Amino acid sequence: MQLGIIGAGAVGQAVASLAAEYGHTVTTLADSESAVVDSDGLDVETAFKNKESEGIIGNQDTEEAIEGSYEALIEVTPTTIGNAEPAFSHVKAALERDRHVVLSNKGPMAERYGDVRSLERDSEGVVKFEATVGGTMPVLSTISALGSNHITGIRGAFNSRANFILSRMAAESLEYEHVLAEAEELGVVKEDSSFDVEGIETALSCSILANVLDQAGQEIALDDVAIKGIDHLPSSTLELAQEDGRTIRLIGEIKDDRIHVGPQLVSGNGPLAVTNLRTVAQLETKYAGQTSVSGDRSSEYAVATTILRDVQQLERSR
Amino acid sequence: MQLGIIGAGAVGQAVASLAAEYGHTVTTLADSESAVVDSDGLDVETAFKNKESEGIIGNQDTEEAIEGSYEALIEVTPTTIGNAEPAFSHVKAALERDRHVVLSNKGPMAERYGDVRSLERDSEGVVKFEATVGGTMPVLSTISALGSNHITGIRGAFNSRANFILSRMAAESLEYEHVLAEAEELGVVKEDSSFDVEGIETALSCSILANVLDQAGQEIALDDVAIKGIDHLPSSTLELAQEDGRTIRLIGEIKDDRIHVGPQLVSGNGPLAVTNLRTVAQLETKYAGQTSVSGDRSSEYAVATTILRDVQQLERSR
Repeated sequence: MQLGIIGAGAVGQAVASLAAEYGHTVTTLADSESAVVDSDGLDVETAFKNKESEGIIGNQDTEEAIEGSYEALIEVTPTTIGNAEPAFSHVKAALERDRHVVLSNKGPMAERYGDVRSLERDSEGVVKFEATVGGTMPVLSTISALGSNHITGIRGAFNSRANFILSRMAAESLEYEHVLAEAEELGVVKEDSSFDVEGIETALSCSILANVLDQAGQEIALDDVAIKGIDHLPSSTLELAQEDGRTIRLIGEIKDDRIHVGPQLVSGNGPLAVTNLRTVAQLETKYAGQTSVSGDRSSEYAVATTILRDVQQLERSR
Repeated sequence: MQLGIIGAGAVGQAVASLAAEYGHTVTTLADSESAVVDSDGLDVETAFKNKESEGIIGNQDTEEAIEGSYEALIEVTPTTIGNAEPAFSHVKAALERDRHVVLSNKGPMAERYGDVRSLERDSEGVVKFEATVGGTMPVLSTISALGSNHITGIRGAFNSRANFILSRMAAESLEYEHVLAEAEELGVVKEDSSFDVEGIETALSCSILANVLDQAGQEIALDDVAIKGIDHLPSSTLELAQEDGRTIRLIGEIKDDRIHVGPQLVSGNGPLAVTNLRTVAQLETKYAGQTSVSGDRSSEYAVATTILRDVQQLERSR
């Protein structure tokens, strides 16, 4: 399939470099500043070298890229909250041109779910967004396999960086600030980690899952999620939990019309106590107990493969 | 969809009683002795009452049932090994009539995978078999979502009864014979538990998974799996493991062309240490680390919903 990649960060680069192995051609590559378009397939290595040496990907602009030649638009720009721009406009332009869209940017599905679905209904294009929740765990595929109407609730530790911080704090009895600094040094947490540790990123995941389940019968956005973060959680709280065979994770929960995010005590050897950069979702079903699915956000390549799986499914359904 | 259910044990009964809720009609119901067929939809309660009071489901025979009116044949007879009969003949007859097949019986896919796939190629019908591995965890859907060619190995605790026995032995420091007797009393383990504790059932799951992955490039059957059971495992071994923060599970493993089943030491709070009647599969991927999926074999209804999910997917792809 011809791919148009919008977003030239680590995930965008990983998608671009794995595309050929999955049988796809990158025909458009853009960041917020510049773009390169070649309907015969472009030389992604040169494009990224240009970006590194000259600060621009190519001589075209982002607008041209969106109007360029591709069958599926891969939206991997950083998530923004509020109106989810500019990602929403990218999605809109692609759907209006009857192109498919695959997202890792959470904004459009978390904040403007109804708008995106409405554009999708009027389009030949289909929107896929497995990479928006939990990075690499196939939670949306699992929801679809189980049937969303047979799922009565979801709980999970969706944010890999919060899991990393909490499992390091517990394992080494270290304070939050110390572990955060370490995580930043290791490159696990990006410069601005507030989205992760304040629970915003988990809340966006919950908003997406709640919209997919549609238990409340109405569109959900970030404002509908009650949010508490893990910043300022003292390590003594984790020690207390450990004495009782438990630990603390940043848990997102969707149950009936209540959607909330916050630190919760979980069983130390239960499925929610995932460590390091793992994520987990626990799906409560009507007749089949709990099904859980867990993934490993080990690298940008891991997220890229999730995006390329979505592309593969679009291809199969043609 | 019109369902023909072959097998009137607990799972068959559960499928029959949930069918209407999923929007399906049971038009054929059979066990090895007798059958009832009604293309307008039959009264399943009366059929099961007949079986209880008179020992027969209805006045027709099983052969007639296979030739009866249904769009999907639900094969839920007990698994047999060797030539997988009579299930294989049921599958063959349905596919030759261009009907779909959904299996919980492991035999045909574990022992005659190539034969079934070959019949499927010549048929308008499709074969689905999610319930054959691990009962309720959606492992085959997850393999399909991840792409089987991107999975480099699978390890798992696929047998819920072996997990139950081992987790009870470890939790209460009880001997195998004691826990087995208890499990039989609770109805967790059926009269003949040898398939479960000797590792045969896990080996059949491994054979199915190996055939789906097709890493060895040739058909796999039970004979290709190296098998050790958990019968005669002393509780002292579990105690030793616990002192080291570990436990023992009956693990099935598919890696390259090596397929084996046996008790293995696993981390006490790792994903493989599932307790009670849970099952788990850990999929090693090329780029995305480990993805795991876990399910709960809490009842026959749980297995029935797995079967009905397969039916739903057949319906969607029409």
